[in-house]
Amino acid sequence: MTTVSTRGTNLPRMGGFNQAALLEAIRLGAGTCTRADLARKTGLSAQTVTNAVRRLLEAGLVTEEDVKRQPGAGRPGTTLDIVPDSRFAVGVHLDPAAVVVVLLDLAGQVVATRTAPTPESEEPGAALEVVVREIDAVLDGAAVERDRVLGVGLATPGPIDRARGLVLDPPHLTTWHDVPLRDEVARRTGLPTLLDKDVLAVAAAILWFPASGRPTDAAVVYAGTGVAIGIVSGGDIVRGVSGNAGEAGHVSVGRAFGRCACGREGCLGGVLSANAILANAVERGIDLGAGATDAGASETVRADRAVDGLRALAEAGDPAVAPFLHETGAALGSALTTVCELLDLDTVVPSGPVWDRLGPWLEPGLRSVLDAYPMPGHHPLRVLGTAGDGPVAAVGAACLMLDDALTPRPTGLLLRV
Amino acid sequence: MTTVSTRGTNLPRMGGFNQAALLEAIRLGAGTCTRADLARKTGLSAQTVTNAVRRLLEAGLVTEEDVKRQPGAGRPGTTLDIVPDSRFAVGVHLDPAAVVVVLLDLAGQVVATRTAPTPESEEPGAALEVVVREIDAVLDGAAVERDRVLGVGLATPGPIDRARGLVLDPPHLTTWHDVPLRDEVARRTGLPTLLDKDVLAVAAAILWFPASGRPTDAAVVYAGTGVAIGIVSGGDIVRGVSGNAGEAGHVSVGRAFGRCACGREGCLGGVLSANAILANAVERGIDLGAGATDAGASETVRADRAVDGLRALAEAGDPAVAPFLHETGAALGSALTTVCELLDLDTVVPSGPVWDRLGPWLEPGLRSVLDAYPMPGHHPLRVLGTAGDGPVAAVGAACLMLDDALTPRPTGLLLRV
Repeated sequence: MTTVSTRGTNLPRMGGFNQAALLEAIRLGAGTCTRADLARKTGLSAQTVTNAVRRLLEAGLVTEEDVKRQPGAGRPGTTLDIVPDSRFAVGVHLDPAAVVVVLLDLAGQVVATRTAPTPESEEPGAALEVVVREIDAVLDGAAVERDRVLGVGLATPGPIDRARGLVLDPPHLTTWHDVPLRDEVARRTGLPTLLDKDVLAVAAAILWFPASGRPTDAAVVYAGTGVAIGIVSGGDIVRGVSGNAGEAGHVSVGRAFGRCACGREGCLGGVLSANAILANAVERGIDLGAGATDAGASETVRADRAVDGLRALAEAGDPAVAPFLHETGAALGSALTTVCELLDLDTVVPSGPVWDRLGPWLEPGLRSVLDAYPMPGHHPLRVLGTAGDGPVAAVGAACLMLDDALTPRPTGLLLRV
Repeated sequence: MTTVSTRGTNLPRMGGFNQAALLEAIRLGAGTCTRADLARKTGLSAQTVTNAVRRLLEAGLVTEEDVKRQPGAGRPGTTLDIVPDSRFAVGVHLDPAAVVVVLLDLAGQVVATRTAPTPESEEPGAALEVVVREIDAVLDGAAVERDRVLGVGLATPGPIDRARGLVLDPPHLTTWHDVPLRDEVARRTGLPTLLDKDVLAVAAAILWFPASGRPTDAAVVYAGTGVAIGIVSGGDIVRGVSGNAGEAGHVSVGRAFGRCACGREGCLGGVLSANAILANAVERGIDLGAGATDAGASETVRADRAVDGLRALAEAGDPAVAPFLHETGAALGSALTTVCELLDLDTVVPSGPVWDRLGPWLEPGLRSVLDAYPMPGHHPLRVLGTAGDGPVAAVGAACLMLDDALTPRPTGLLLRV
């Protein structure tokens, strides 16, 4: 990941692979790890652990506590834990409907959240203003000194040019073309900034939080204005050759189900995006109210209202809505079995504003297909919820920034040997 | 990869990450690298390079040569190269039609090849006999001492249980259930043995040979008795949670095109496998001759004859065959665009016995779809051939064995720090 910084380093660099590996082990140990535990977990020597922990203590990133062990469990030890407010990261999720900004501390807790509507004009300049204003407001509101902020993670719809930090031409942000969002945010906030795709930010959140069970091979679905599937394979996020992995609009659901813009029937994008749900519900004669078909509102707003309308009808027990959403969930399941089979995944993590509101009615159909599918490796396909607090794409964007600064990655290791 | 060895180590272990990284750099340098070049390429210190190269020279794996540089290009240097016949690996490709065994030297050259028909009975015991007999014959014929053989790589159709070395229940080997092929071959040959899926062996071959251009993000198609797509992502083979990644039979080609056993139209398995090509050609009224429809022959044999028949008709300029194969290639292209988009791949590598014979007539249709597809990252989709000599799945199986013994992998690095 290319991170752009516009200032001198306000932090000592984290000291390479060993130190980052230790910091991650301390975080995941959640206050229970002794130095001996860390040596065992990381495979580092006792001396290396002692030296690296000393540097982490000096930098104020970790703290230690003397604890008595259970009677008979040996001599007392000193456990280590993260100092949550020693460092922070900002996460921004920009989508056609809203700008969401979160502040995460070093332990991954959401310290502050702000949401603002994305300007109706869709002009990149107007959206950029909102992003920068909301970042400032979050930092000012939380009274966090900027020199404790590792940086800003930006999550946007794709496609992007990850190396150059550009948002290229997202289908639902029609006036955006090659927008240098990363560098503009870095310049205006003075903070190191990185840019990634929204669905990959969600995947980063899932890998960051131990509560997710940290699946190694998973399909992370993001259903919102569009539909994306981010892949986690062998514990890593699949990014692809240009950072644009995750485009799943044309994965087939295996049967006719709503017409896609590409002209084919049965594309996932014609089934699970908010716009597709609106169109398919209308076709089935489901009455979503005037708001969803109001010609004065934008397509994004109408689709969003349609999702709210469907949820209200489902809660009220409308007899047409439950079968429609069951069928929609089953279609998602069909698309996912193809993906899980191709990549031998065992976990599915649905997320996004459509899933957040309609999940209880989509999930039975999804599970019915996944449970019945004979995977080649004879393992089941499980459905996990997203973990962690708050809006998952924005949280994930902040996780990407924490990750960039802190997490061990073997890539490039040779250069440091 | 779990490798089973039935004997004491006949080789010093390769000395970990640094030494393996150097060996790979020397191999890829093909006799042009000096110690200084190696230090620069690997990021290792000059002292580390000197020490590791000394161990490689002592083990007889590399050799050095004094060379004069071009006038004015500085002082003369000593270049290093692999000693090809210092070590070997056996690769076996077992499929429903044939058992192919190759012997590869340390430079990746095919030293010997043998092919035998897979016994008609399909009994695992009979096939195992053939595998062991052919391995012995290859080693005896090449007069290679067994203590120079790193081991045997086995490539079979999936699904497999990679950790336990079992072939589970391949759809085209109907009498096979949980066959302990890896351990049986290890026991009978006395050689370390590993088991992997055929399409992943092909992917390994593509990553091993520099002539392939070593794509980092690629879809490797294997079209034979079935159809598989192995994924290379970020330079690594995607294996999945149980080692069964690559099952692509139900990836959609986006339109009705031959019925799949799953009941749907438009599955890739209903388009590109040898059986599917036979069925679809017959449906279009193409006359493949009596051999392809001979009820006395097995399905595998008939399908194989059908591919030969189509090739003969295509070469003779049959007016129905060229459009049929163009359409089949285009359907493969459609399936691949979905996969390439989801994983942001930029390279497609078709292979396998169907492609080897029909590729010249399938490729125009394939390319027409790939060339027209707007990838999100705005990069083209290129079509590569497989590199290296000989039968690619068997060669790839040998590469997996070489890889297991020699190639640097950061996984597990922490345990060695």
